[in-house]
Amino acid sequence: MSELSVNHLLGIKYLTAKDIDLIFKTADHFKEVINRPIKKVPSLRDITIANLFFENSTRTRLSFELAEKRLSADIINFSAGSSSVSKGETLIDTVNNILAMKVDMVVMRHPNPGAGIFLSKNVRASIINAGDGTHEHPTQALLDSYSIREKLGEVKGKKIVIVGDILHSRVALSNIFALKLQGAEVKVCGPKTLIPKYIQSLGVGVETNLIKALEWCDVANMLRVQNERMEISYFPSTREYTQQFGLNKEILNSLNKEIVVMHPGPINRGVEITSDVADSKQAIILDQVQNGVAIRMAVIYLLASKIKP
Amino acid sequence: MSELSVNHLLGIKYLTAKDIDLIFKTADHFKEVINRPIKKVPSLRDITIANLFFENSTRTRLSFELAEKRLSADIINFSAGSSSVSKGETLIDTVNNILAMKVDMVVMRHPNPGAGIFLSKNVRASIINAGDGTHEHPTQALLDSYSIREKLGEVKGKKIVIVGDILHSRVALSNIFALKLQGAEVKVCGPKTLIPKYIQSLGVGVETNLIKALEWCDVANMLRVQNERMEISYFPSTREYTQQFGLNKEILNSLNKEIVVMHPGPINRGVEITSDVADSKQAIILDQVQNGVAIRMAVIYLLASKIKP
Amino acid sequence: MSELSVNHLLGIKYLTAKDIDLIFKTADHFKEVINRPIKKVPSLRDITIANLFFENSTRTRLSFELAEKRLSADIINFSAGSSSVSKGETLIDTVNNILAMKVDMVVMRHPNPGAGIFLSKNVRASIINAGDGTHEHPTQALLDSYSIREKLGEVKGKKIVIVGDILHSRVALSNIFALKLQGAEVKVCGPKTLIPKYIQSLGVGVETNLIKALEWCDVANMLRVQNERMEISYFPSTREYTQQFGLNKEILNSLNKEIVVMHPGPINRGVEITSDVADSKQAIILDQVQNGVAIRMAVIYLLASKIKP
Repeated sequence: MSELSVNHLLGIKYLTAKDIDLIFKTADHFKEVINRPIKKVPSLRDITIANLFFENSTRTRLSFELAEKRLSADIINFSAGSSSVSKGETLIDTVNNILAMKVDMVVMRHPNPGAGIFLSKNVRASIINAGDGTHEHPTQALLDSYSIREKLGEVKGKKIVIVGDILHSRVALSNIFALKLQGAEVKVCGPKTLIPKYIQSLGVGVETNLIKALEWCDVANMLRVQNERMEISYFPSTREYTQQFGLNKEILNSLNKEIVVMHPGPINRGVEITSDVADSKQAIILDQVQNGVAIRMAVIYLLASKIKP
Repeated sequence: MSELSVNHLLGIKYLTAKDIDLIFKTADHFKEVINRPIKKVPSLRDITIANLFFENSTRTRLSFELAEKRLSADIINFSAGSSSVSKGETLIDTVNNILAMKVDMVVMRHPNPGAGIFLSKNVRASIINAGDGTHEHPTQALLDSYSIREKLGEVKGKKIVIVGDILHSRVALSNIFALKLQGAEVKVCGPKTLIPKYIQSLGVGVETNLIKALEWCDVANMLRVQNERMEISYFPSTREYTQQFGLNKEILNSLNKEIVVMHPGPINRGVEITSDVADSKQAIILDQVQNGVAIRMAVIYLLASKIKP
Repeated sequence: MSELSVNHLLGIKYLTAKDIDLIFKTADHFKEVINRPIKKVPSLRDITIANLFFENSTRTRLSFELAEKRLSADIINFSAGSSSVSKGETLIDTVNNILAMKVDMVVMRHPNPGAGIFLSKNVRASIINAGDGTHEHPTQALLDSYSIREKLGEVKGKKIVIVGDILHSRVALSNIFALKLQGAEVKVCGPKTLIPKYIQSLGVGVETNLIKALEWCDVANMLRVQNERMEISYFPSTREYTQQFGLNKEILNSLNKEIVVMHPGPINRGVEITSDVADSKQAIILDQVQNGVAIRMAVIYLLASKIKP
């Protein structure tokens, strides 16, 4: 049987195209499972998973938790507010203590880029990065590509534009790695100040005009405007952002083709996309959420099968 | 087999007398279950329930959680503090995202009256209202009536007085609907400023003298003084409230009969009732709490059986 | 079959040497269980446990939760922030309400010394004290002694020094009771202002010189510097504490023997012990954490077996 080339999911950067293919085929199976009347499998009854969220999250935390429950894993939850992090303990000590209680896998969200990588080198346990600062958010990119594959048959050769604050977005970076690895063409679109200098070195095109970007693409992934990450204001105002980079039904209808609209959520309705776009048939936003559970089941299942008993 | 006339439990207002009877008979069965050594049944192994609490709660949240666990449902919990609500997402988006993860039922507490009704019209899932602002708290009213039925044999024809801040109480309103539907006589008692003008249109009597109200009734449901809901002060002070509407042992003993004393909790001992009343044999406050789990198991079970696979 | 002499675990003070021996033998079994591929036993499928944490905790809460899950108990969690304690409800009312939902056992952490004892006299349920203010933390002391027994073969006759703020430490007090009961010799070491006057009446020696204390002992239990408990400053500064009572590798190597180093966590690296000490082979800090789960499984299992069905 084939297996992943890695023992952790720290970023898409560390995966091969074959890894992604294996994850998608495994997710196909689990997607079928969660659409059965009994949405559970007993696969991971012998695995204990710690969900460590050092940053707030709703959908990612719940999605992982449901994925774990549907695999019958035992779960412990830990969030920064109720933690001893505030008592001055180091991250490694916190995690090592949790691991000493015989935890096999850690799902971690952390505000610092590289937190997952650092951890994977210092503790014995399989680490899944559920978002590390502005760095990577690999399961989001996997579920995004999986949703494109589901909608359009394959990712290879498709044209995807990622619109928004590329500079601060772990979703953008992980998506770029995943899409390029699968042979898609990728452009980013957004205010110049929010596009990092190194982006072209990743083989990604830059387009600052939204209409032109949309006319080129098959899929538009509309990033959330994350005011909480923009410490300095890189753009005049949210209203001006919406005027230049917001997607509304008028723009969508003006295109000479039917593009697919994606959004990682949570949506700011009326900011990056209007309600009629979010609720249109071209939007696959809720499919992304549903696929997220199947993708996370697949990742957890495949990493668990690499843990030596 | 008989089934509920509704697909959601949004308020007592939407139930029939036959619905309440079916819920009570189902609760009789579950009450027997939770008194067995093994307090669990495997009935809802195929159901995932999301508990969405946009307002603090202890007993209601724990009671629902225990009811769900004893039915073997899978559970995800979500509370406002750790949510993306603060990120500007709409309620429908938040809930639709959770539903896209294949959640079958939502138990929701929300500060806004009508939040559950609004949701039930906009999402696919069975909604249970666990309290929506000053509007309704249907499972509380069901467990209250169930506790009266358990103590006095039936609700029909019994005289119940509800004492306290009627104006801001979802417990009072749901109780009035439930009691009237079952053929009880109902009076409310409290400061005039805390009794809504429309109360008599519901077929409910008003009595501002506590002693007279108690002399009339079979059951007194003493509401909690909820300072957190009284935005403007409608009454001089808590001390003066207690002097006029607080129930103590002396008053209880002065009556020419033994009335039943109820309280939805949490009790302010010494405010709405004194400790000796709360701990007396006439008080069925802890029975109410125990019956709450059985009633919630019944409601969840009956609504789940209406979900089409 | 033998059983505990108590119905609650309120403090080591109330246990016999035979009780401790029974807990350790039961923990030996569970330690073997949690090192199996499937780390769970179905023993307590009929038991519901409420974890009531009125004070923040990471490792203790997670350790209890894992112990409960590995015994297959049903669990409800309750922490002070989301509770009705702030609504003016008494502790007994809060707990009685939870018990009315058919909860069999309560694990409670509370800031007030004696909270567990008070509760055990007023509610029907088995109470486990998970730390009550500056009073006792019995499961910590049990896992500490268990870890000494594991490392050195037995506790009897061993010389243990407890270093730090003895005055405010429930860990120190519970350890003293446990160690003396098992026939160990105990000294405490720390600033004079942080050693209670009554300590010698417990048969415990006092040594204010760290080097002398370490030269005497087989085991040094280095307490955490808990700034959050020192309401008035009893010591000039943390830096000066470290200079006089901090353990570093140089000191450790200067001793003419290899002592065992313990710490209840979370560690302030560089304050009470340096990193090279914490990570050395002489430190059994992570063994303590791992043994914590086995000890808590044993305590819960033994108390549950005393609950009359």
